[in-house]
Amino acid sequence: MAVSLVILAAGQGTRMNSDLPKVLHPLGGVPLVVHALTAGAALEPERIVVVTGHGADQVQAAVAAHAPDAVSVRQEEQLGTGHAVAQARAALDGAAGDVVVLYGDTPFLTPDTLARLRAARTHHDVVVLGFEAADPGRYGRLVMDGEALDRIVEFKDATDNERAITLCNSGVICANGAVVFNLLKSVGNDNASGEYYLTDIIAIARARGLRAGVVRCDESETLGINTRAELSRAEAAFQARARAAALEDGVTLVAPDTVHFAFDTVLGRDAVVEPNVVFGPGVTVESGATIRAFSHLEGCHVSRGAVVGPYARLRPGTELAEDVRIGNFVEVKNAVMDPGAKANHLAYVGDAHVGAGANLGAGTITCNYDGVSKHRTEIGAGAFIGSDTMLVAPVRVGARAVTGSGSVITEDVPDEALALGRAAQVTRPGLGARLMARLRAARKGQA
Amino acid sequence: MAVSLVILAAGQGTRMNSDLPKVLHPLGGVPLVVHALTAGAALEPERIVVVTGHGADQVQAAVAAHAPDAVSVRQEEQLGTGHAVAQARAALDGAAGDVVVLYGDTPFLTPDTLARLRAARTHHDVVVLGFEAADPGRYGRLVMDGEALDRIVEFKDATDNERAITLCNSGVICANGAVVFNLLKSVGNDNASGEYYLTDIIAIARARGLRAGVVRCDESETLGINTRAELSRAEAAFQARARAAALEDGVTLVAPDTVHFAFDTVLGRDAVVEPNVVFGPGVTVESGATIRAFSHLEGCHVSRGAVVGPYARLRPGTELAEDVRIGNFVEVKNAVMDPGAKANHLAYVGDAHVGAGANLGAGTITCNYDGVSKHRTEIGAGAFIGSDTMLVAPVRVGARAVTGSGSVITEDVPDEALALGRAAQVTRPGLGARLMARLRAARKGQA
Amino acid sequence: MAVSLVILAAGQGTRMNSDLPKVLHPLGGVPLVVHALTAGAALEPERIVVVTGHGADQVQAAVAAHAPDAVSVRQEEQLGTGHAVAQARAALDGAAGDVVVLYGDTPFLTPDTLARLRAARTHHDVVVLGFEAADPGRYGRLVMDGEALDRIVEFKDATDNERAITLCNSGVICANGAVVFNLLKSVGNDNASGEYYLTDIIAIARARGLRAGVVRCDESETLGINTRAELSRAEAAFQARARAAALEDGVTLVAPDTVHFAFDTVLGRDAVVEPNVVFGPGVTVESGATIRAFSHLEGCHVSRGAVVGPYARLRPGTELAEDVRIGNFVEVKNAVMDPGAKANHLAYVGDAHVGAGANLGAGTITCNYDGVSKHRTEIGAGAFIGSDTMLVAPVRVGARAVTGSGSVITEDVPDEALALGRAAQVTRPGLGARLMARLRAARKGQA
Repeated sequence: MAVSLVILAAGQGTRMNSDLPKVLHPLGGVPLVVHALTAGAALEPERIVVVTGHGADQVQAAVAAHAPDAVSVRQEEQLGTGHAVAQARAALDGAAGDVVVLYGDTPFLTPDTLARLRAARTHHDVVVLGFEAADPGRYGRLVMDGEALDRIVEFKDATDNERAITLCNSGVICANGAVVFNLLKSVGNDNASGEYYLTDIIAIARARGLRAGVVRCDESETLGINTRAELSRAEAAFQARARAAALEDGVTLVAPDTVHFAFDTVLGRDAVVEPNVVFGPGVTVESGATIRAFSHLEGCHVSRGAVVGPYARLRPGTELAEDVRIGNFVEVKNAVMDPGAKANHLAYVGDAHVGAGANLGAGTITCNYDGVSKHRTEIGAGAFIGSDTMLVAPVRVGARAVTGSGSVITEDVPDEALALGRAAQVTRPGLGARLMARLRAARKGQA
Repeated sequence: MAVSLVILAAGQGTRMNSDLPKVLHPLGGVPLVVHALTAGAALEPERIVVVTGHGADQVQAAVAAHAPDAVSVRQEEQLGTGHAVAQARAALDGAAGDVVVLYGDTPFLTPDTLARLRAARTHHDVVVLGFEAADPGRYGRLVMDGEALDRIVEFKDATDNERAITLCNSGVICANGAVVFNLLKSVGNDNASGEYYLTDIIAIARARGLRAGVVRCDESETLGINTRAELSRAEAAFQARARAAALEDGVTLVAPDTVHFAFDTVLGRDAVVEPNVVFGPGVTVESGATIRAFSHLEGCHVSRGAVVGPYARLRPGTELAEDVRIGNFVEVKNAVMDPGAKANHLAYVGDAHVGAGANLGAGTITCNYDGVSKHRTEIGAGAFIGSDTMLVAPVRVGARAVTGSGSVITEDVPDEALALGRAAQVTRPGLGARLMARLRAARKGQA
Repeated sequence: MAVSLVILAAGQGTRMNSDLPKVLHPLGGVPLVVHALTAGAALEPERIVVVTGHGADQVQAAVAAHAPDAVSVRQEEQLGTGHAVAQARAALDGAAGDVVVLYGDTPFLTPDTLARLRAARTHHDVVVLGFEAADPGRYGRLVMDGEALDRIVEFKDATDNERAITLCNSGVICANGAVVFNLLKSVGNDNASGEYYLTDIIAIARARGLRAGVVRCDESETLGINTRAELSRAEAAFQARARAAALEDGVTLVAPDTVHFAFDTVLGRDAVVEPNVVFGPGVTVESGATIRAFSHLEGCHVSRGAVVGPYARLRPGTELAEDVRIGNFVEVKNAVMDPGAKANHLAYVGDAHVGAGANLGAGTITCNYDGVSKHRTEIGAGAFIGSDTMLVAPVRVGARAVTGSGSVITEDVPDEALALGRAAQVTRPGLGARLMARLRAARKGQA
């Protein structure tokens, strides 16, 4: 049966003390809302509707970047969760099947939990995701009637007996879309906050003879983010899981606590990651590759046998083939390096293709920017680029060609050719020492 | 009423196992004694007297660097805290009002606590700062007589009943200066250690009919440093507070535990700090600036919209205006960069002024040192400095001027001019491959 | 009395989920098995036999690299610890005295514990190393008979009474070699696992009237590694001890938790180590040297007064004399730098000797590799190497010689000479701005 997602992402998040909308704060390298999108994507939804409000344009842009098929709808005033879900009605017009309501600030739901939530629809008209709270505090309580969910009580409206309940409301809900929107019509705002609560649909559904049920998940999955301190604890939890999962998968993390993962980092078995490595989004490292200390990777692929770092920065669009070697203080951007190519020291390789086994000497720079546009550099297989060679793009150095140290290469170099661009050395006996003596004397004169 | 500070900073700190005097060990990037000076400064003291002993010259120099108005006096022999305070008498001659005694190895007192200490002088002639100890151990005990402080008992002289007291002595004391020095005259050294204890003035004061009282603070404020392990715990506590405060202030710390703060780091709301950033002393980062991973900043200012790093090092005297971009493996020292200026890769910018929107290519170096003196480089607005340009200072590149890749610029370049300093490329067909073949053959011959 | 070691290192370590044999996973920068070798070396063994199996060639190579005198023997099938020890018989033929059996995956035994184990042989024919387990779990139990060890019971064979015993078996054993091999002949494999257990020799020894005894050590010493999670906890424990020991020794660690030690890191008293420093194997830093943030050191020596980093990488073979200064984004490899020599920014110094007080400007590169072989660079005392100088090795720059910025030095430079290799600057008025205008127009034309 088809399913659609409604993701609530309109809140300001006042307690974040930020101009950035709450759901755009990053966790594991992507906005919080992307985690909700990713969890929901496992249900293979027919439609995805994100309800935006505060910073709607920014949120819509972030959503579009990660889920191009998602539709953003605007909640002009924040009048409660029920009101928020109701904004999705038009966008879901004609969509058959269920609706699952998720939250842009609740990043830890697992695909497994959502699958169980959906599966429970076999037995219930409306399914609520609940959790046993270690400290129920001010959470809404799920009041059960045997196996059935009777109603959801907000903490402030709860009796002492109800407050003693430890089964709490996550806010996540699943029901037939038409049913949800129909129930929402009956939800009022006659309560202390003057808001329309999504949770009220349970009691209404029960009153209409519909069956409501609960699926339980671990409390950690329902963690919502309201402050920067909570966000930093969530990030710590995310990192701890990512590290443990990597170890479980057979990755060698020399000092796991110093490795920073993104939400989509993929590391192969027996990949080695040394201390103090940061993975931004979009990184895959194959089995048996090594990422040395103090490296920073984003949007790149590192193949088997490649060694990266220490102090290497791989930027988006970097593809390192087998046995490539990127050494210290080297930046690679939007560049493909074929098997066995090397850039061991102090280099910038951008908008380039480097052939198999080519060696880029220390100080090599692809001068890819002329002040207006970016241009490409081609380096052939087996080429030897001398130290401090400037490759003024667009330019091509042929296979097995050689450039002399300190050359500025502005014209293509044919295969196997030698290209030089440097002044001959002139040596003047005694002049070095005399020069220095003069500088020292001048300084003394000033003092 | 006027107040003066006496800061005791004469101890060797044998247990630190160091040639550096204990109070000069760093916490949050500055010597311990500076924390005492900073806390005391909130009282707006008329005079500050630092009592030095071990490593007196070094301590005096550090004090002078951070508090030029402070007077250092020498305690030639370490004969106890009472003796130490007595050394300050001459330096306080003619100073009216109170004296507050602080400790160079006790860095966590808050201005609020010191203000309360002073305020309590309304009701008491001598006020002692006390704390409820979780584990009183060998601390001196404050023996109360109702609301009044009766006396301070050293642990080793305490009866079992007295040892059961959990209200302990911090050593910090406030009283009229003339009274303190008068009381000290009556303090003897007839005790196990043969030392003159400052604490003895309480009993003497009471015997003379003076009123003594206690102000309580949290135990964490009174933490003294005696070993390197204690210092590292103090540093961890300092960092934890700095991180929590930054989050509270609306700073985005992606991985707070990996950011190292100095005592005076100022980060604006919605500033973003990525993992593994070190702030040395004297850094301010405006709202909405971004400090990327693995960056190291000292004595610099980063304006709104600027992006720094990863792997950027900003040294003292760096001023980055709005929207400046400092990229990887770039060092900036004593340089002002106007709005929108960029140095994205592998560069050294020292003793320089870079105009608005100027672009410094990869490998740009300001050659500011001629072996004897440092010289300045001026780069005009909108200039385009080609990759690997050496700017041999003193030198000026004009507005909208361009330098060619690999040029050594030794003479001023007028506005809008092009400056080149490089040999033309010479390409020799086939010679690259022949050269390599020859090298390989030669090597084979050797083997 | 002579002693020999038998180190069991044949296991696959299936739960490591790795192609690398378990005992080769690194701890403190060296394979686990090296820790067992190092601990055992304190006994000054006459012979060392390592029993290999899974990945035998790799293990043998690692052992040979760290303990050239060790003999590796092959256990073709893994038939139990008793069978493993029996493989060492031929290699120990003719060796007098005792045998101590250690484990390649148990890295934390201390020399003191092993000394006590050996000393206990005075009173017992066979000595087993035991420990009081906080949670005995599935460990084998040591069943005592007064002061004598009666037998070792595997957990699965133990009665409830025996399972209540908290004194557990570490597996480490010491006895006369001839006795061990004789006892092993009587060990059978008639048990659930079908394996020959080394532990069975205790009961056999007792049955023959031999005396067996126990030496106790702290449980933490007997920690064995079976999973990557356990390995990462072991690494954390190793690092915690190394940091605490350094503090105890009087090293200044600004943020101890961010400093990564190797098994053999030596730091002098009052050496200063800033945050985020990685020590690979083979590093010694003298008293009063400073290692600044984000530095990475391996196989190098740093002398008193030298300052390294931030962002400095010292590779094997680096020797820094007193007061040398290595600054940011500088790599040094296989190079000796004499007192007071400096390379402050963006440089590569490889296969070189740098004389006292020489100054290497930013961007200096020793071009040590010609595509086939490595060559050496000599820089004389007091030389001044201008920024962006390429030193094409083999080459020598004399004492007090000077090279001009941007020069490619291919020929030796005599003492006190000045060497230049650069084109003169040509400045074309107005051309910079016209060039940029043309590029912008061209781009517009494309768009």
